[in-house]
Amino acid sequence: MAAGIPQTGLQLLSTVKSSGELELRLAEIPIAPPAGDEVLVRVEASPINPSDLGLLLGPADVSTLKQAGGVTTAKVPEQFLKALAARLDQPMPVGNEGAGVVIAAGPDPKAQALVGKTVAILGGAMYAQYRTLKAGDVLPLPADATAADGASCFVNPLTALGMTETMRAEGHTALVHTAAASNLGQMLNKICLKDGIPLVNIVRSAEQAKILTDIGAKYVVDSTSPNFQQELTDALIETNATIAFDAIGGGKLASQILSAMEAAANSRGGAYSRYGSSVFKQVYIYGSLDPRPSELARNFGLSWSVGGWLLTPFLAKLGAEGAARLRQRVVDELKTTFASHYTAEISLAEALDPAVIAAYQKKATGEKFLINPAKGL
Amino acid sequence: MAAGIPQTGLQLLSTVKSSGELELRLAEIPIAPPAGDEVLVRVEASPINPSDLGLLLGPADVSTLKQAGGVTTAKVPEQFLKALAARLDQPMPVGNEGAGVVIAAGPDPKAQALVGKTVAILGGAMYAQYRTLKAGDVLPLPADATAADGASCFVNPLTALGMTETMRAEGHTALVHTAAASNLGQMLNKICLKDGIPLVNIVRSAEQAKILTDIGAKYVVDSTSPNFQQELTDALIETNATIAFDAIGGGKLASQILSAMEAAANSRGGAYSRYGSSVFKQVYIYGSLDPRPSELARNFGLSWSVGGWLLTPFLAKLGAEGAARLRQRVVDELKTTFASHYTAEISLAEALDPAVIAAYQKKATGEKFLINPAKGL
Repeated sequence: MAAGIPQTGLQLLSTVKSSGELELRLAEIPIAPPAGDEVLVRVEASPINPSDLGLLLGPADVSTLKQAGGVTTAKVPEQFLKALAARLDQPMPVGNEGAGVVIAAGPDPKAQALVGKTVAILGGAMYAQYRTLKAGDVLPLPADATAADGASCFVNPLTALGMTETMRAEGHTALVHTAAASNLGQMLNKICLKDGIPLVNIVRSAEQAKILTDIGAKYVVDSTSPNFQQELTDALIETNATIAFDAIGGGKLASQILSAMEAAANSRGGAYSRYGSSVFKQVYIYGSLDPRPSELARNFGLSWSVGGWLLTPFLAKLGAEGAARLRQRVVDELKTTFASHYTAEISLAEALDPAVIAAYQKKATGEKFLINPAKGL
Repeated sequence: MAAGIPQTGLQLLSTVKSSGELELRLAEIPIAPPAGDEVLVRVEASPINPSDLGLLLGPADVSTLKQAGGVTTAKVPEQFLKALAARLDQPMPVGNEGAGVVIAAGPDPKAQALVGKTVAILGGAMYAQYRTLKAGDVLPLPADATAADGASCFVNPLTALGMTETMRAEGHTALVHTAAASNLGQMLNKICLKDGIPLVNIVRSAEQAKILTDIGAKYVVDSTSPNFQQELTDALIETNATIAFDAIGGGKLASQILSAMEAAANSRGGAYSRYGSSVFKQVYIYGSLDPRPSELARNFGLSWSVGGWLLTPFLAKLGAEGAARLRQRVVDELKTTFASHYTAEISLAEALDPAVIAAYQKKATGEKFLINPAKGL
């Protein structure tokens, strides 16, 4: 196996140039033999999550994508450049998570024990053929799990578990989730069904509602229904959900959720207060499927909060022990609760093809792309 | 003094009728002799705070105010009635706070000791000639303080102190305040100057800016300035304020504050993260001078929160000891830090006069009305 250590490997880099151009290319980077407790992983699967697209494409206008000489470019509208100052002209590696096989290891026994194992990684820069990591930073998968099985071990599973953990830690007993038919949303349904947590799913079409009822979801509300506000309120009266995780962000949805929570609280009676109910209502915005401003009507009393929510600070707050507990649950339920399904498996080269980019950047419900850097090279 | 106990007293009542009409009238209510540890207070001063106007007038259309037979009425637009369901057809007493003289007391020595004293009260229903309270629920004022001096002992002083307390409790070191030239805002400036807390004042005119610079405010930013966003960012870079209390509520101001806080955080450098800075940014909305929806552009990373803030739950969270500490400070600095100034002193009857209502409901900066229920009767 020592002879098998490659000298170089390809890595996908995304650069936003100060001239207003996005540039995507594959760079050949040198690979050092692993030292100490390091392991060298041949990456075989890395998903394209919505959270990766932000770094990969930034605010580029995808209608201007073109490819020439192995380099893919697109225009970045002038007005976005200021917000990108900190990354301008710096090639950024992409890919939050993935999985692959340990093909070499440093002398440390902890590292040596991993050789030949399939491991999952939350390490960034995963859209690459090879990654060198500390042995303690990879998660060994069960013997029957492929790299594709373990590629999405972290972002969606820990985000979904982060929602139920946050719910409990902040004193709520039931959840609301939007864009609920997503891969993440389906996973959250499986967790909540298993753990007995009432979950109100908000979707945007009858097709999405069916995806969820088919996997056993009890409360599914369609925001395109003419009676949406009342139907949501009814579900909140029944579940007593007072915390929501919202992937949409823009428009009126967060405000509608807070109003429905307030109506549900007031339906339980109590004395009139012009400040509204004393029930604390929380919406966390963790995505931005709708990039417009969030419009809060503030017709839901004064006991409310809307805030950003992000996995990394949540895990930091949870601490090493808590994070390890969540990771272990993911491994234990990898092929059930946390199973991911992919629409297509593409190579690193295909990930730069304008036609393929056009497909994966749509973030269509139920569609998810997997990059296999070991494919077609 | 026993002979002096009145049999009845006038009390202002506000009713929103299900027919869509606001009705204000003075009711004659019976007065029982104080028992046990009760004291009977002749109310001599009670301010009209913005927080009182909500209960007094609700969402009534003040252009339709009229008076006949001692009863003042106005139309309440149909669309607001649903939100008022819990108070419909119930006469509500009004007036959060005030001060007056104890004219009788129950046999308990604690109550007896207060006879003849001028006391401040946060008890509701203060737009009345007389109020009966427990001795422990009134705050004796210093001997040289009049009822007018002590009438606004609670809402504004405790709200302003609540802001600096919340700032400290949540790990911030400097404050932003909007509608900052208000009575409350001036008080907050005095507290912050005294306590050495950097305070960024946001005002809406040059005249308001002058009110604050005249009392020693260091950071005053005018939101009508063409360079408002940059001027605010500069003040935030200098003060490192990461928490704001916003009385405006509607429109883009909360969002502009968060964006400026984020720009200030990013000006301190650090690695690029597409999720924005890791600096936590908080805006509390405690008023609604602009009733439009709050528009959050979400161009300030994911480490942020916007929430409602209200004095009563803050005090409950602070606990009895903490609240007593704040109240004592108000008494100690009643004629300096916490001095209030009134535009006009009006009687209960005048408080029902449509022309007078038109004046006090404007909430004009620097204007504040005091009701003296002992006046003109």
